[in-house]
Amino acid sequence: MTAPNRATLWGRVLVDELAKHGLEGVCIAPGSRSTPLTVAFAEHPTIDVYSHLDERSAAYFALGRARRTGEPTAVVCTSGTAAANFHPAVMEADQARVPLLVLTADRPPELRDSGANQTVDQVKLYGDAVRWYTELPEPEPDERKVRRLRTTAARALSETTGEPPGPVHCNCPFRKPLEPTPVPGDVPESFAETTAARGRDGPFVETTRGTGTLAAEEHGALLQALEAADRPLVVAGPADPTALSALEPAAVTELADRLGAPILADPLSGLRFGPHVRPESDDGTGRLRTIYGGYDTYIGELPPPDVVLRFGASPTSKPLRHWLRDADARQFLVDPAGAWREATFTATDLLVAEPAAVVDGLLEALTTAESGLNEGMTDDDWRARFDAAERRHWTVRDEALEPSILESDPFEGAILASVVSNAPDPATVFVSNSMPIRDADRFARPRTADLTVLANRGASGIDGITSTALGAGSTADEPLVLVTGDLALYHDSNGLLAVDRCDVDATIVLLDNDGGGIFHELPIEAFDPPFTEQFKTPHGLEFDALADLYGLEFQRVTPTAFDAAYRRSIDASGTQLLAVEFDSEASHRRRDALAERVRSAVGGTPE
Amino acid sequence: MTAPNRATLWGRVLVDELAKHGLEGVCIAPGSRSTPLTVAFAEHPTIDVYSHLDERSAAYFALGRARRTGEPTAVVCTSGTAAANFHPAVMEADQARVPLLVLTADRPPELRDSGANQTVDQVKLYGDAVRWYTELPEPEPDERKVRRLRTTAARALSETTGEPPGPVHCNCPFRKPLEPTPVPGDVPESFAETTAARGRDGPFVETTRGTGTLAAEEHGALLQALEAADRPLVVAGPADPTALSALEPAAVTELADRLGAPILADPLSGLRFGPHVRPESDDGTGRLRTIYGGYDTYIGELPPPDVVLRFGASPTSKPLRHWLRDADARQFLVDPAGAWREATFTATDLLVAEPAAVVDGLLEALTTAESGLNEGMTDDDWRARFDAAERRHWTVRDEALEPSILESDPFEGAILASVVSNAPDPATVFVSNSMPIRDADRFARPRTADLTVLANRGASGIDGITSTALGAGSTADEPLVLVTGDLALYHDSNGLLAVDRCDVDATIVLLDNDGGGIFHELPIEAFDPPFTEQFKTPHGLEFDALADLYGLEFQRVTPTAFDAAYRRSIDASGTQLLAVEFDSEASHRRRDALAERVRSAVGGTPE
Repeated sequence: MTAPNRATLWGRVLVDELAKHGLEGVCIAPGSRSTPLTVAFAEHPTIDVYSHLDERSAAYFALGRARRTGEPTAVVCTSGTAAANFHPAVMEADQARVPLLVLTADRPPELRDSGANQTVDQVKLYGDAVRWYTELPEPEPDERKVRRLRTTAARALSETTGEPPGPVHCNCPFRKPLEPTPVPGDVPESFAETTAARGRDGPFVETTRGTGTLAAEEHGALLQALEAADRPLVVAGPADPTALSALEPAAVTELADRLGAPILADPLSGLRFGPHVRPESDDGTGRLRTIYGGYDTYIGELPPPDVVLRFGASPTSKPLRHWLRDADARQFLVDPAGAWREATFTATDLLVAEPAAVVDGLLEALTTAESGLNEGMTDDDWRARFDAAERRHWTVRDEALEPSILESDPFEGAILASVVSNAPDPATVFVSNSMPIRDADRFARPRTADLTVLANRGASGIDGITSTALGAGSTADEPLVLVTGDLALYHDSNGLLAVDRCDVDATIVLLDNDGGGIFHELPIEAFDPPFTEQFKTPHGLEFDALADLYGLEFQRVTPTAFDAAYRRSIDASGTQLLAVEFDSEASHRRRDALAERVRSAVGGTPE
Repeated sequence: MTAPNRATLWGRVLVDELAKHGLEGVCIAPGSRSTPLTVAFAEHPTIDVYSHLDERSAAYFALGRARRTGEPTAVVCTSGTAAANFHPAVMEADQARVPLLVLTADRPPELRDSGANQTVDQVKLYGDAVRWYTELPEPEPDERKVRRLRTTAARALSETTGEPPGPVHCNCPFRKPLEPTPVPGDVPESFAETTAARGRDGPFVETTRGTGTLAAEEHGALLQALEAADRPLVVAGPADPTALSALEPAAVTELADRLGAPILADPLSGLRFGPHVRPESDDGTGRLRTIYGGYDTYIGELPPPDVVLRFGASPTSKPLRHWLRDADARQFLVDPAGAWREATFTATDLLVAEPAAVVDGLLEALTTAESGLNEGMTDDDWRARFDAAERRHWTVRDEALEPSILESDPFEGAILASVVSNAPDPATVFVSNSMPIRDADRFARPRTADLTVLANRGASGIDGITSTALGAGSTADEPLVLVTGDLALYHDSNGLLAVDRCDVDATIVLLDNDGGGIFHELPIEAFDPPFTEQFKTPHGLEFDALADLYGLEFQRVTPTAFDAAYRRSIDASGTQLLAVEFDSEASHRRRDALAERVRSAVGGTPE
């Protein structure tokens, strides 16, 4: 590793080592102080560089990429407020366990708190939201320092995918010259030949991280509890993004089938969609469904479970969370990071282990157990009631989607239903917070297609949605669909620049109800003022101008015309913005009416 | 103070007390958790509520309002990433000493770190960037708690205008019901009659804050040092916004005149414009100028000062900072907050006192001293050299502005020159960071008009510029002009929504050089790649679509047609976006050439 000066050396060594540890993508916002990092990333042969002009969008884009791939993604900015603009995405990465490596350039230490320009206190800028904060030493061609630099690069990347995965903040002070300007003697020729400067063929240091696995007897005890249950249940909440945290869908489906336990699969769980799904119970096999998706509507009408096995984060569905809270059941939470992600505090047992390992351990225990479990149990009344309720839910939904009915009673959920039902196989579908994810939870039917449905459910903000989606679509070799609301689209309008700059092809579906539709779901609706001015906040923005600004094809479509427009957009190249207008209040009433129809039918089902 | 429930009571008491302590404006972004605050602010009869949809823009707008008025402005958001979106503006408020009261709603404590939705760690979210962090107790109709609430409101507001002024973060946990829904018995009727709930006629508690004033003998000693100087100088850097930190222009001008000291007045100092300015030395009075504004070009050609009296933050002009660094002078820094805002570390004396008090003390000491100072000293060679250089600078500038010359050699500085020269009296002119503020420093000539020129020079980011400007214009009863670049306009494009939502009438001047023109000023220009892709970052955005989106009148004008378009815009109602295209590289070369012409002339002046 040769370099014209120490700052360039520093950038090159850091980037070289990050690449050797598998870093493949970085988002960079332009700036002067970060020049050594930018130069090194830009000249690296294997790292993809995504250039962004708004640091907030840059960080969310990196978050989306890391979220979709499960692999760390880096983000680079200059000193000052630029770094603070990363904060929202860092917060989401923390909560959603996304491996994000944040590299902030900084002024040299002697300039801090001296009134020097663009110099702020970046030390521990993101507080406890990061897995690790570290500050690089000042660049110097010193062997120990450069070894430290390579080790820090290795550790920083490894910490992003530790347990739990999350953001790491590395503050990087640099002094001039920042550019690759030759400074004779600054990096002695002999230094280039040291192991520190050259690095090794592979990583300079290796991290091997053990994973949480329960002992055989612990799996046995867990199995016993599940076997003893009359009404066993598996709840799969939003999944963490890294491979270590992933469930193997076929395995967990087999387990649930053998236990006679329905799986309530959050749209973000990684279990609602895929080849393991049997979307119909009358599919000729005579077997009931294992994966359930309509529970948000009907769950309150069913008897409580007595033993629950929970994976992932807290489910999107509030009715489900309340039903579990009121169940007085034994609830096992599986979380490799050992967090108690269950805010009703009615869960009873925390299993600190990899989800896939728990499932494998239970399947193994089942095989070992002489008795085994009878697959016939999957037909017992417990699961049959879920199956009947599920059938009812999708029937009601399908009727509501009939063009003639949809035309007179349009509702936003119809779009989520269509987006997921008509998404190509495979596809990535990113769903905004607030109402769209709730509508996806309720109206996106389980499918056998390989759909990756994602959302920012860590902190559930409506900021950064567009950028996260585009980041998620930046590497996947499959169509990308984003479903967003008008407030979220406005909030991250800058993120649309990445369509062109980062060459992402997407279909963007805008549910435009001119303001915050979710507030119709809240009691504040009854208090106007301030409801309209301060909560609903109609803004009157015409998004065709936004599409124009960022070179998107814009189309305004009615709910009944949506399916056709959506299919055309999927097939077309380039990015389309399909805007569907809704009255959020009417949409809210329609949602309620549909749920009520399902509930009365399910509640009325004889035991 | 009655209330239907404890959350409503809490919001009302807090807002009541803030209003009694003088709070007059609040920016609110919609959200559910913040409902008790939003409801209370919205129903308050005297506080202006500015509704924003992007929290980043909301906070910058509040910053701008506080910056312009010198009075605290509050900003309210819901829990989660919303609060992190405030961080850039909080950082700027910290560095620029702007009184910003940040009220973040939060979930109740038992939900923290529990996986509950939209719940993040907001405790000390902004680290050391705030003057005070406090968390409100949970709402309860308890006398001590409510007294504490009123006292906290008083203290929070007082801390924003303490020494130094800056942001205060008050985290506000609330539990449901958040809306003003009646909860019988929740707030006993008798409680409404307590002093805690009712408050007092005026503020519940009063804070009286002493100000830093030097003793008479300290003023005497300072005067002695200044009197003994051969080449005394006053340097006025960017001024802090609150009244306590302000200089009295007439007084400091009188002082400088009597000392024979030129005042080098940063465009943000509050001294470059105003009735105290004598823009010409040949104005018939025979007196030399006191206020100098062209020094960025010529300062390196003049002999060094021997005693310097410095006010405000570090000057925008890098040549000035370097000239002072190399001067080996005695440098007195006046800073009421006692910060050492002088990053070359060549200043020698820090005076922790109010600037106006120091000036008054010196004037008094001058009067007391038998000898006094001879006003004739203002004609000595020292000040005459400044005067000659200044004349030369503006002559060269004026020639460059001649339409025929400007047409063949356009440069961005011509627009800054025109914006300031042709600004109505009075007016607020907000100038973006990066090149516009540097061009304002160099090309904005001192005027007798009452111009308030502002910029975000705390952390010098290019984020939040539009919102800060619109916030600055939201209360001032005078025209608002914003000069911004294309990157800054893109970065805070969301901020333009406030033109309509907050009813701000502005003239927005866009210097469009399609990317980061400032990088042409840096050595990285010679390294392409990555210069164009990662630094200059041309984006090709057509801002007429942006104007369309936000309902602004758009006009593309040439540099020579700018003056006329600008005057028309000032006279017109509504907000105009005047876009002037430049080649940033050519602009950079022209800047250099003009500076070189001034320098060679000034350097060649015989002693």
